[in-house]
Amino acid sequence: MLASIISAGMSKIGKWDNLSSRELFAEAFIECMSRVPNLDRKEIGSIYVGSQSETYEHQTMYGNLVAETAGLLSKPAIRVEGCAAAGAIALRSAIIDVMSGVHDVVLAVGVEKMTAQSVDNVTDALMAASEPTLEQYNGLTFPSIYAMMAIDHMHKFGSTEEDLAKVAVKNHHNGSLNPKAHMQKQITIEDVLKSKVITSPLKLYDCSPISDGAAVALVCRTELARKYSDRPIQVLGMGAATDTLGLYSRKDISWPAAAALACSEAYKTAKIDTKQIRLTELHDAFTINEILLSEAAGFSDKGKGHILVREGETAINGKVSINPSGGLKARGHPTGATGLAQVYEIFLQLRGEADKRQVNHANYALAVNEGGSDAVVVSHVFGR
Amino acid sequence: MLASIISAGMSKIGKWDNLSSRELFAEAFIECMSRVPNLDRKEIGSIYVGSQSETYEHQTMYGNLVAETAGLLSKPAIRVEGCAAAGAIALRSAIIDVMSGVHDVVLAVGVEKMTAQSVDNVTDALMAASEPTLEQYNGLTFPSIYAMMAIDHMHKFGSTEEDLAKVAVKNHHNGSLNPKAHMQKQITIEDVLKSKVITSPLKLYDCSPISDGAAVALVCRTELARKYSDRPIQVLGMGAATDTLGLYSRKDISWPAAAALACSEAYKTAKIDTKQIRLTELHDAFTINEILLSEAAGFSDKGKGHILVREGETAINGKVSINPSGGLKARGHPTGATGLAQVYEIFLQLRGEADKRQVNHANYALAVNEGGSDAVVVSHVFGR
Repeated sequence: MLASIISAGMSKIGKWDNLSSRELFAEAFIECMSRVPNLDRKEIGSIYVGSQSETYEHQTMYGNLVAETAGLLSKPAIRVEGCAAAGAIALRSAIIDVMSGVHDVVLAVGVEKMTAQSVDNVTDALMAASEPTLEQYNGLTFPSIYAMMAIDHMHKFGSTEEDLAKVAVKNHHNGSLNPKAHMQKQITIEDVLKSKVITSPLKLYDCSPISDGAAVALVCRTELARKYSDRPIQVLGMGAATDTLGLYSRKDISWPAAAALACSEAYKTAKIDTKQIRLTELHDAFTINEILLSEAAGFSDKGKGHILVREGETAINGKVSINPSGGLKARGHPTGATGLAQVYEIFLQLRGEADKRQVNHANYALAVNEGGSDAVVVSHVFGR
Repeated sequence: MLASIISAGMSKIGKWDNLSSRELFAEAFIECMSRVPNLDRKEIGSIYVGSQSETYEHQTMYGNLVAETAGLLSKPAIRVEGCAAAGAIALRSAIIDVMSGVHDVVLAVGVEKMTAQSVDNVTDALMAASEPTLEQYNGLTFPSIYAMMAIDHMHKFGSTEEDLAKVAVKNHHNGSLNPKAHMQKQITIEDVLKSKVITSPLKLYDCSPISDGAAVALVCRTELARKYSDRPIQVLGMGAATDTLGLYSRKDISWPAAAALACSEAYKTAKIDTKQIRLTELHDAFTINEILLSEAAGFSDKGKGHILVREGETAINGKVSINPSGGLKARGHPTGATGLAQVYEIFLQLRGEADKRQVNHANYALAVNEGGSDAVVVSHVFGR
């Protein structure tokens, strides 16, 4: 056991024209603190913040703003960045901090305010996570990158546009059960297939939305966790790995090697097997990526991820419940916050507080958060 | 003892039109690896990179590029950011990682490529580290912020423009002894006083230059350090603290409270007293800041920092040798790299390899790196 999560909080995800990122953080932080009445705020020793605020808000040193907003000034507050993986990187940093013995209780924060920017600006900001000399400067976009992965997977393994659509339909269904989700509308296979083509074979409903939101988790030394919470969840394992930024440099573009490594390391530290996991939040920035990550995480053999969703095995209380929160697809994707939004869902699920989307009999859960084209992947295994 | 530094490396600092940031990193990394022939590169478990690449190079996930350049892909590689304090934050993260037991050998990297930008763009990029609603949007700049601190100090304590000039003259002298310094030209008090006024009372020679450069350090679990190096240096203490981003929110604008806290925490963990330190690298982005930090670090009483430099006590082999490398002022200031450039100097000094600028009889050393207007401060105490 590496550490415990004694509390978590999340803002409602959405397009919030009248809320600053600091207000979204405050919403998440207030919820988080409400679950740990025995914790004096001053016992929080350190803060890690995942965000791309430098681009979206022209704000470096965003940690200081979080510390100030939380009434925690003077505490160390560090911004970490890994594009869409920044949230899980903040969590990982907090866990390592607690493991080191430097601090007992550490706050992990993910926050992003994206919708104040034009879609062009957001596209440009996201592309900063791609390879500079060939991908960025030649105008590639992430929908195009993931479309190439999808085509490769379809060609090699026979996955179809309907399979991708099924991921979207499932996640929109789950999102409709999540009062904090950005998208709460159920959709049909036909809706997906008829939606606007973004980069073939990906259509509008294959892509996650641009969102605003914040999520936080309080990481605590396990020996102290019961002092603050009667139902902490446990961090059992973690793994992180990198791949080339450029998709063109990889031998196999539909195999997210960094994800496979990060998950196998997380299982190894947790001393558990994939088969013991019935609940997972996977980084479905595009529908194809849920399929690729379900393979890399070992829920199916390589090249068989689409069969899982095709046969309904990934629905809530299926063989493995993938993205019961609605995933990035429907819960929304405020980049720096996403990794901790995954953890927030798992925190609720393992405590039995997920209401209409509750996954039953899950003792373990896996979160997989990635940045770029699965170029940095951070995985955590939790238990109750 | 928290951890050991088994090697370090630094590129020459300067304006390098024909070198990318990755090439500057490679220069530093190759030097670093040359000092540890017994280390198989694959034993490096993890990488932390301090940089503002997101702004200067439109590059997030810069950790991946470092890992790829170093032949370390698949290893976790995380970008950390705290404007000019990013380098020391990378070091701190590496130390905490080693202390946690997750990895035995961790690479800390600082890198910045600034000179490809116009001065206006750099000014704008730096201002992202200031308070958004009043400071950024009203066009304040960092020279103006530090000028206000200087005026306050002069008014309260009687420091003079000549005292500030003496900091610049000393650091240019030291830089002239440092073959890797950006500025290797000696200057006189008159040169400083007659140089162009930037924001009164700060003149051109009171300000550090805009630079390109990279610096790295290899942090190792102490028990393993002798396997790789016969002269590792020891990380004895560390501290970090935050203050308001906005200068206007502080009670005392010429007292860097976060620096005082970070240093006292570093001394406490190191179990040593300021008086035992005869060698320090302090963050002299502006001459006034060397004086303020020398007070916060306890080398003089509050309001007496200018007396130290006035009386020549801060020269190499004075009472306390401040910035023997030339400091930010003359060694140069590639923001994300600076914190590790300080550590590179201390690494050489404590090993007795600092050649013409060698400080004698120094058993301990202090590094103080800050971001914004001393809004985040990271301090480390080293020993040999």
